[in-house]
Amino acid sequence: MDIYEQIIKETDKITGELTAQRRDFHRYAETGWFEMRTSSIIARKLTELGYEVLTGSQVCRKESRMGVPSEEALDAQYQRAAAQGADPEFLKDTRDGMTGVIGILRCGAGPVIAMRFDIDALGVFEETDSCHRPAREGFRSVNEGFMHACGHDAHAAVGLGVAQVLMDIKGSLHGTVKLIFQPAEEGVRGAKSIVDNGHLDGVDFFLGSHVTPKKDSDPAAVIPGSIGYFATTKYDVVFHGKAAHAGGSPELGQNVMLAIATAILNLYAIPRHSGGASRVNVGTVCAGSGRNVIADEGKMEIEVRGETSEINQFMEDYAKNVLENAARMHGCTCEIKLMGAAYSMKSDISLMERIKAVCENHLSLPVSQQMAAKGSGSEDVSYMMRRVQEQGGQASFMRILTKEAGPGHSRTFDIDESALPNAVKIFCGVAYDILK
Amino acid sequence: MDIYEQIIKETDKITGELTAQRRDFHRYAETGWFEMRTSSIIARKLTELGYEVLTGSQVCRKESRMGVPSEEALDAQYQRAAAQGADPEFLKDTRDGMTGVIGILRCGAGPVIAMRFDIDALGVFEETDSCHRPAREGFRSVNEGFMHACGHDAHAAVGLGVAQVLMDIKGSLHGTVKLIFQPAEEGVRGAKSIVDNGHLDGVDFFLGSHVTPKKDSDPAAVIPGSIGYFATTKYDVVFHGKAAHAGGSPELGQNVMLAIATAILNLYAIPRHSGGASRVNVGTVCAGSGRNVIADEGKMEIEVRGETSEINQFMEDYAKNVLENAARMHGCTCEIKLMGAAYSMKSDISLMERIKAVCENHLSLPVSQQMAAKGSGSEDVSYMMRRVQEQGGQASFMRILTKEAGPGHSRTFDIDESALPNAVKIFCGVAYDILK
Amino acid sequence: MDIYEQIIKETDKITGELTAQRRDFHRYAETGWFEMRTSSIIARKLTELGYEVLTGSQVCRKESRMGVPSEEALDAQYQRAAAQGADPEFLKDTRDGMTGVIGILRCGAGPVIAMRFDIDALGVFEETDSCHRPAREGFRSVNEGFMHACGHDAHAAVGLGVAQVLMDIKGSLHGTVKLIFQPAEEGVRGAKSIVDNGHLDGVDFFLGSHVTPKKDSDPAAVIPGSIGYFATTKYDVVFHGKAAHAGGSPELGQNVMLAIATAILNLYAIPRHSGGASRVNVGTVCAGSGRNVIADEGKMEIEVRGETSEINQFMEDYAKNVLENAARMHGCTCEIKLMGAAYSMKSDISLMERIKAVCENHLSLPVSQQMAAKGSGSEDVSYMMRRVQEQGGQASFMRILTKEAGPGHSRTFDIDESALPNAVKIFCGVAYDILK
Amino acid sequence: MDIYEQIIKETDKITGELTAQRRDFHRYAETGWFEMRTSSIIARKLTELGYEVLTGSQVCRKESRMGVPSEEALDAQYQRAAAQGADPEFLKDTRDGMTGVIGILRCGAGPVIAMRFDIDALGVFEETDSCHRPAREGFRSVNEGFMHACGHDAHAAVGLGVAQVLMDIKGSLHGTVKLIFQPAEEGVRGAKSIVDNGHLDGVDFFLGSHVTPKKDSDPAAVIPGSIGYFATTKYDVVFHGKAAHAGGSPELGQNVMLAIATAILNLYAIPRHSGGASRVNVGTVCAGSGRNVIADEGKMEIEVRGETSEINQFMEDYAKNVLENAARMHGCTCEIKLMGAAYSMKSDISLMERIKAVCENHLSLPVSQQMAAKGSGSEDVSYMMRRVQEQGGQASFMRILTKEAGPGHSRTFDIDESALPNAVKIFCGVAYDILK
Repeated sequence: MDIYEQIIKETDKITGELTAQRRDFHRYAETGWFEMRTSSIIARKLTELGYEVLTGSQVCRKESRMGVPSEEALDAQYQRAAAQGADPEFLKDTRDGMTGVIGILRCGAGPVIAMRFDIDALGVFEETDSCHRPAREGFRSVNEGFMHACGHDAHAAVGLGVAQVLMDIKGSLHGTVKLIFQPAEEGVRGAKSIVDNGHLDGVDFFLGSHVTPKKDSDPAAVIPGSIGYFATTKYDVVFHGKAAHAGGSPELGQNVMLAIATAILNLYAIPRHSGGASRVNVGTVCAGSGRNVIADEGKMEIEVRGETSEINQFMEDYAKNVLENAARMHGCTCEIKLMGAAYSMKSDISLMERIKAVCENHLSLPVSQQMAAKGSGSEDVSYMMRRVQEQGGQASFMRILTKEAGPGHSRTFDIDESALPNAVKIFCGVAYDILK
Repeated sequence: MDIYEQIIKETDKITGELTAQRRDFHRYAETGWFEMRTSSIIARKLTELGYEVLTGSQVCRKESRMGVPSEEALDAQYQRAAAQGADPEFLKDTRDGMTGVIGILRCGAGPVIAMRFDIDALGVFEETDSCHRPAREGFRSVNEGFMHACGHDAHAAVGLGVAQVLMDIKGSLHGTVKLIFQPAEEGVRGAKSIVDNGHLDGVDFFLGSHVTPKKDSDPAAVIPGSIGYFATTKYDVVFHGKAAHAGGSPELGQNVMLAIATAILNLYAIPRHSGGASRVNVGTVCAGSGRNVIADEGKMEIEVRGETSEINQFMEDYAKNVLENAARMHGCTCEIKLMGAAYSMKSDISLMERIKAVCENHLSLPVSQQMAAKGSGSEDVSYMMRRVQEQGGQASFMRILTKEAGPGHSRTFDIDESALPNAVKIFCGVAYDILK
Repeated sequence: MDIYEQIIKETDKITGELTAQRRDFHRYAETGWFEMRTSSIIARKLTELGYEVLTGSQVCRKESRMGVPSEEALDAQYQRAAAQGADPEFLKDTRDGMTGVIGILRCGAGPVIAMRFDIDALGVFEETDSCHRPAREGFRSVNEGFMHACGHDAHAAVGLGVAQVLMDIKGSLHGTVKLIFQPAEEGVRGAKSIVDNGHLDGVDFFLGSHVTPKKDSDPAAVIPGSIGYFATTKYDVVFHGKAAHAGGSPELGQNVMLAIATAILNLYAIPRHSGGASRVNVGTVCAGSGRNVIADEGKMEIEVRGETSEINQFMEDYAKNVLENAARMHGCTCEIKLMGAAYSMKSDISLMERIKAVCENHLSLPVSQQMAAKGSGSEDVSYMMRRVQEQGGQASFMRILTKEAGPGHSRTFDIDESALPNAVKIFCGVAYDILK
Repeated sequence: MDIYEQIIKETDKITGELTAQRRDFHRYAETGWFEMRTSSIIARKLTELGYEVLTGSQVCRKESRMGVPSEEALDAQYQRAAAQGADPEFLKDTRDGMTGVIGILRCGAGPVIAMRFDIDALGVFEETDSCHRPAREGFRSVNEGFMHACGHDAHAAVGLGVAQVLMDIKGSLHGTVKLIFQPAEEGVRGAKSIVDNGHLDGVDFFLGSHVTPKKDSDPAAVIPGSIGYFATTKYDVVFHGKAAHAGGSPELGQNVMLAIATAILNLYAIPRHSGGASRVNVGTVCAGSGRNVIADEGKMEIEVRGETSEINQFMEDYAKNVLENAARMHGCTCEIKLMGAAYSMKSDISLMERIKAVCENHLSLPVSQQMAAKGSGSEDVSYMMRRVQEQGGQASFMRILTKEAGPGHSRTFDIDESALPNAVKIFCGVAYDILK
């Protein structure tokens, strides 16, 4: 039997398992650096399948992680994960938010292929109404305020499916497979810390994917690549001033409110860039302690983006300069904390064409007319792709097409699970094509 | 025996009781519209003393109250007051934040004198260190986050002392006494609703007071009056816009962040007024739902002040115009909610001189060189004083001098309780002087 | 003899004349709506060549002109044009800034082709140093502060050359030629008024061009078309407030300074558009009458741009809303005066290919590899192109390549005049190709 | 004859001369540092009267002058002064704007009294209509755009009258008289440079005055002193950035427009001061070179004021910090040039009472009920007063009451010249009272 056919057959066998696994992850949604139960289960399964498994500080470089929650919050989540059926052996590696898992399958000489599956949920309250299928069918998130509203539950389940099917065809592979289960993709916080640990060094081929809405009328199962994701940088900015009574001695204050207002207007007023699109957003602001007190403390969550990493750098530099001078203008200071970052992204044409050929010629999966999806958001898979590409490797970020309910990041988001086996077949088919 | 001497004697007898009562109120601090336990105890005592007692909606006009907490918060506080020893009979009148008590003593024909005692605490965490006497001596607030950091615990205790002593000399009085125990003075939220119920109509003389720091070297017990408190208006402002993805389609948003920043700068930039001092403050701002979302909702707590009510009106009008146009500029709307208000204040010279004469000639209490204290804050007793003065009555807002620990409104605030009997004597002495 | 060869020969004959004409226009540079001498000379030459000639209000619709100078300035320029050798007969048609000329050549049945040549100078002081060729060779602008720093002197001279050569081959043409000498292209103020007079109605083919810098190593003479010029709108904004003494009674003023500052920041802060590039600029501001006076009057010159006309419309609408609310916020008013406008632009591929074929096959003029130049500025030729294209006609805006000295719009700008005959040949060759 | 009576008699004799002199100065109005004709005539008259006369750099310290016009403008004015009848001998001392005159009369041992008369006009176009008396009666300013709209023409004429009358009673004086004819009071630019030359050192008594509107019904001729003039500082601020094409490469610019808008809003937003009144004004702004160019240059004229010099210092420091950080925020720089300054002012009570006594007891001139006028503007006579007062001397700034037409600083301003002899009598009477 043709190995591609074997991939199809083995995948079809585990379709029910894929759905069950996705629903389990959905039910116990964990946001970035909190994926403790999720990681422990992944590590357990990979171990059982026979993979060489990396966990804890072997995966993410501790100091390179961005936007890590407070110790108290991490401890609380650790307790909850234990209570929600985490694997006790692997759970302990995730303490302090050291989540994420890598499974390695070595099959002798040959190219190295890495595949990225992100595993974190979002801080969204999931819909309770029964018209939302997860509510109706009992896999709505039990962790109130956390929800897989972006499909990473599916990504993680697909990753485990890929692990199983590749193990099935291990004998036909020549080279090395790395399955990277990445934490904290939301907020683009996690990928850099995996790259910084060297896991993408020496990788020849790289694949990532994201579920993407498909139209009813469109038979395609996949878009082979992506281009044009924005480079982005996320900051938390804390302003410090001096309080004073607003009626009695306003001149004694150092008013962060004035610093913040000046910063907001001037951030949005950063010049447009002739080299391409840019973005800036002050998403949240919270400042001041009382109506009649000159505000002495305030916090903003901001982000900048650029169509290219150079434009993003321009935005970064300008934004920092605005923030620092806005603070100084009113005798205040500001701390600018890096909370996340991603590069712009470009999939390699030759790899996209290889994906297309595998799907059409061997997997009977129709490919979209559109070779590369254009992204207007940001993805930190770009850190991994850039590392591979700058060493001469090829990388692509595919879009797995699926009928979706509700917009991404909304409380009613859901996917058509029939996309799960498609995704497993594509990853495995392409991996085999490379390592055969 | 001379009645003034009787006042002195009766007051000296209850000195211990005054301190105990003040410490009880201190221990169970309740902020504005939450003074349920406090009100029930006051009502009980006045009733026992033989006063005609008004409670519930008889005191504050329900719709005129400003800055009332949410129903949930009021219900929770109601439960807590019950658990902390509120008088069950009178507690029920305070449901829904209908706090405050008025005690009336009718002694035949003669002038009407009203006295105001405010009873609310502040939203301050009280110092736990033992160098803070209330902590050391066991009357630190048990309601975490609420603290009598402005001395209204003393004011309330003084009011009950006055009630007792006046009842003792009832036979020598000709006219009517009204003791007004006012809720929600902090934030200048309560007085107007008492005035709106007509309780100041027909009042010929009005007295209020506030504890005020004295220097060690200053023997004075009282400053007879006050001038120059700012008129003020407090607003909560809620901005409504439209969310959009900050990377994907920023042009679809209606960004309250831009409206708010524009409002802040332009509020502080309202022109200075040649007629006298003015103030404006944006004390708190909270806006936005996430870093990568165009903010569609935000709230500010602001206030304006004026040395005269006319200047305050100028500030009010200008501020509203700034807010509305800042919202409109970015396709947003704003709601401007009145949360508190006070007029400017001027004590009557003839009443101040009467107070001085009573203290020096009859009570052996030294009076400050300074006839009237100059205030740079705001006091809603001004609503009551203005109502009395516009009918031809006289009003004064005295300052009871006391050695204080810690600045007002701070977590270490405390008073020298020897000022309590002084205050009782002054109120009673002046009342007798008017009604004798 | 082949007609293309005749075009080449006739053009080569008038090369000296082309240079002389360009230098004459250069020496008497006239800015938008001031091109009185220039128009009179063009009208005289077209008349002498035998063209049907339109002048004065036959060319531009009076009310559709944008950014017209004051009457006094127009009168002064009229006097100067008379003194500088304007043709007296045609000069009188240009009174009140009614400049511009159209020459029509009717050659029986056939397509209508229109060609646009813009004729206005810029408000730039021309370099006096002898390293600037016009200074060295005596054709520096005698009108101080006006300079042909964008090459429209060359465009106008080319237009007259085209007129002459087409008249030479008139017998071989079938259809109608319209030569449009357009005033006030700078500031995109003139084209709309010509379109509004109907001159582009019924036109089948449209050609415009602009000189463009070439590299030494590039043999190409022309880029056949252009895409991507920004749609743009230009406004003058006048703010009206109320003066007051800044020390004595600042509260009586209505301060345009605050309105203007608020407008500036918020204009630059208009959201980026996900549909493509946008621009906004506050180019100049002048406000206030004295240091110690609340400013009651101020003027800004602003512009917005959009990669598409829809994005430009978004910018226009947002900008107006910012301006009006910024004024209202401080009790001021503002007038927003339209000073110029252009659409985005896209040359037709089939016409670009025709241009390429004519140049390469018949004129021995090398064509750039790049079919269409990408523009980041704005051009009101877009008004004409859009009118032609929306009727089903074809339009292209070519780039005539020439070695340039100094950057465009700078005081040292100059061109290599050998590009002039190239341009004449291209216009005539394509016209013949269409009308043959 | 009593010397006071002699003062009255001598002054009455020269009433016609006073009016004529005032009208001559009015007709040849000269603004700050341009008072070349005016100074030369004063110097000539003082010399003729027998005074020791200081001119040129003996009067104002050259480097201490503020807000000096350009050399070209000074040269042009010098030519005009010569053509308008300046005294040739003294005119030459005024070259380069070294205007101002001091006349000294030494009468042996005794106190030193200095009197200040300011001599400059304003940049106002004088009314041409015949309902304006100067126009009707032929002494309207012949220097278009310059006008004595603040009464300094009267001050200068009074100074010369005082010089004459004091010389008449020289024999009865014991001490020294200094008559200081100060340039450039408008914009508070001149006084400091006279103080810096030491002319107020060793002065025991100081008098200045200003004409002030009187009501018809008010018989008073003078208010003896003034209090509460604002301390003030005037700056010109020049911002430097970098130009760029607003469509083609906005990111390459350093946009002073953003720096200026940020500065304006934040200057007006400087906190109110609890110590007393403050002011800030951005009176004029001019920036940018063209609509489609990122602005690289801009200029603002600003001022701050404070009820006390300390408050003014707070405003100064805050304003400079705002300006520098607003510039830096957009990669720009700013120069802050000092253009004028004055202290707050307080006349001495004992000197005011002396003035009152002299007027009422000896001069039959009624004195206002109000001892000290409250000023809301600024006066650089405060530099002189402060120098005298800090050495222990006494100083007063009187208000000479007169019926005025038109508001101060307006094109229709005029005074009732019957105030001129009053002023002469008061200055001379008080001087005699001190030196007798």
